[in-house]
Amino acid sequence: MYVILVYDIEESRVAKILKICRKYLKWVQNSVLEGEISRVSLKKLQLELKRAINEEEDSVIFYILRTTKYMKKEIMGQEKGGFDNIL
Amino acid sequence: MYVILVYDIEESRVAKILKICRKYLKWVQNSVLEGEISRVSLKKLQLELKRAINEEEDSVIFYILRTTKYMKKEIMGQEKGGFDNIL
Repeated sequence: MYVILVYDIEESRVAKILKICRKYLKWVQNSVLEGEISRVSLKKLQLELKRAINEEEDSVIFYILRTTKYMKKEIMGQEKGGFDNIL
Repeated sequence: MYVILVYDIEESRVAKILKICRKYLKWVQNSVLEGEISRVSLKKLQLELKRAINEEEDSVIFYILRTTKYMKKEIMGQEKGGFDNIL
């Protein structure tokens, strides 16, 4: 499956959260990571994040795609992270 | 179609960019909007943004889904924006 992860994390926890996310996904832009990931790895990522965030203050959204066949990605302006064409 | 938009915009332009995006999509989190949008409206949105951003400094990514049938959205921690179940 393919995951787009966006987070909104309190400053003091950002570095830690980003480090966790980077183990599983590719950084593409400020607060955004994406990548192919297995169901098991996604569960691991979510477990690690659950322990690291403050659920009263932070927010993480996972867009989980069973296939990228129906998705197109378009970038306007700077391409910040590494980018493989996912289609 | 369904669009997830994430932006990374220089501070001085954020308010203007957000205002444009909000005309077409729903704010869900810091720097993230999403929503159903027609092809024509998406083109309009992209045109407005192209005029408003600085392409040397800013970045906007559009994840354009032909269908949300294969997408699941999971939120961890705070749900910041209004949220309709998209499935």
